Amino acid sequence: MAASTPGRADLTPRVLFGLQEALCRLPGIGPKSAQRMAYHLLQHDRPGAAQLAFALQHALADLRHCRRCNTFSETDLCERCASPRRDAAQLCVVETPVDMNMLEQTQAYRGLYYVLMGRVSPLDGMSPRALALEKLAERVADGQVKEVILATNYTNEGEATAHYLSTLLANSGVQISRLARGVPVGGELEFVDPGTLAQALRERIGLHVKK
Amino acid sequence: MAASTPGRADLTPRVLFGLQEALCRLPGIGPKSAQRMAYHLLQHDRPGAAQLAFALQHALADLRHCRRCNTFSETDLCERCASPRRDAAQLCVVETPVDMNMLEQTQAYRGLYYVLMGRVSPLDGMSPRALALEKLAERVADGQVKEVILATNYTNEGEATAHYLSTLLANSGVQISRLARGVPVGGELEFVDPGTLAQALRERIGLHVKK
Repeated sequence: MAASTPGRADLTPRVLFGLQEALCRLPGIGPKSAQRMAYHLLQHDRPGAAQLAFALQHALADLRHCRRCNTFSETDLCERCASPRRDAAQLCVVETPVDMNMLEQTQAYRGLYYVLMGRVSPLDGMSPRALALEKLAERVADGQVKEVILATNYTNEGEATAHYLSTLLANSGVQISRLARGVPVGGELEFVDPGTLAQALRERIGLHVKK
Repeated sequence: MAASTPGRADLTPRVLFGLQEALCRLPGIGPKSAQRMAYHLLQHDRPGAAQLAFALQHALADLRHCRRCNTFSETDLCERCASPRRDAAQLCVVETPVDMNMLEQTQAYRGLYYVLMGRVSPLDGMSPRALALEKLAERVADGQVKEVILATNYTNEGEATAHYLSTLLANSGVQISRLARGVPVGGELEFVDPGTLAQALRERIGLHVKK
């Protein structure tokens, strides 16, 4: 083997190999995709490659965490926290900024957020301490918050995080709620998994009958 | 709409939005994956982000095309072309450096390569002229090459490229061949598509019967 493919893989130039290795660190990208990406960038989109290098450096240099909601921000206080148009009585706790964006896209929420930047996941080395939850506890105790909506994922880790937070905030005097689970809007019962359907049954909503 | 989500999407910081846009230029990456990648890099792998920026800049600055085989190389002549251990009588023509690596991994080929860095694809603006095929024609005419193996893909564009090249090189006096098509090694007829199976029938190989 070593005789027919000397050195690193396939005599790939060291610089190109380095780029492929760096692309492999992106989540969901394996060696094959990394090769394809490197070829695409170098042969068909060199301005795109330069733009990505530039964007990475600026993001590393200029982004910090918002003092209030912990999301990525260029300023000490993010635009959303600084807005007087948001309802400070509601605080929605999410795992990541991506989840926050998903909720914003619904245009159904006008309150504020707290971004955990992770979830309780001991296997990945994320203990409750690693999440710096004291900052959230302080935030909830600021006197303005009346309701905390736990919008962590309905995965095992997300559920564990919600459970931990509900215990942590039990004596805070604010109302704690969790996103509803159930049949998706537009969904057909035939295609809903049994676990979700069972949950939708258990958490069914009473309808008022007109008299 | 504009009233409830002012400015760019979801009040994402400009620098973060720029990073997401740059990641979107990678092939196969949509806005959702780009968001997830940006979050991962900034929150969980900042060294990875720095490494990627560095690798991109170095690749852009240091990689050129090998004078002889046209693949990416840090030097004027790539390591493979410079090796005295390769058989200069065989020249394998591939579309991309990734395809070349796939062939190298087979360890079944000891000849040299010519990398087109693309394929004839008028819809994508890749005319035969854009591929700079004169360089290949010169290479074939160097007196050393005895056989040209056309190893472009068996897609429509790859087939068109092979057809174009076989016409271009028809009078060059070297043997022209194309990779075999057929049932994959370890494949079961039940799961092979009809087109491939028909081709395997048409191009069946005669077996010698012992007398």
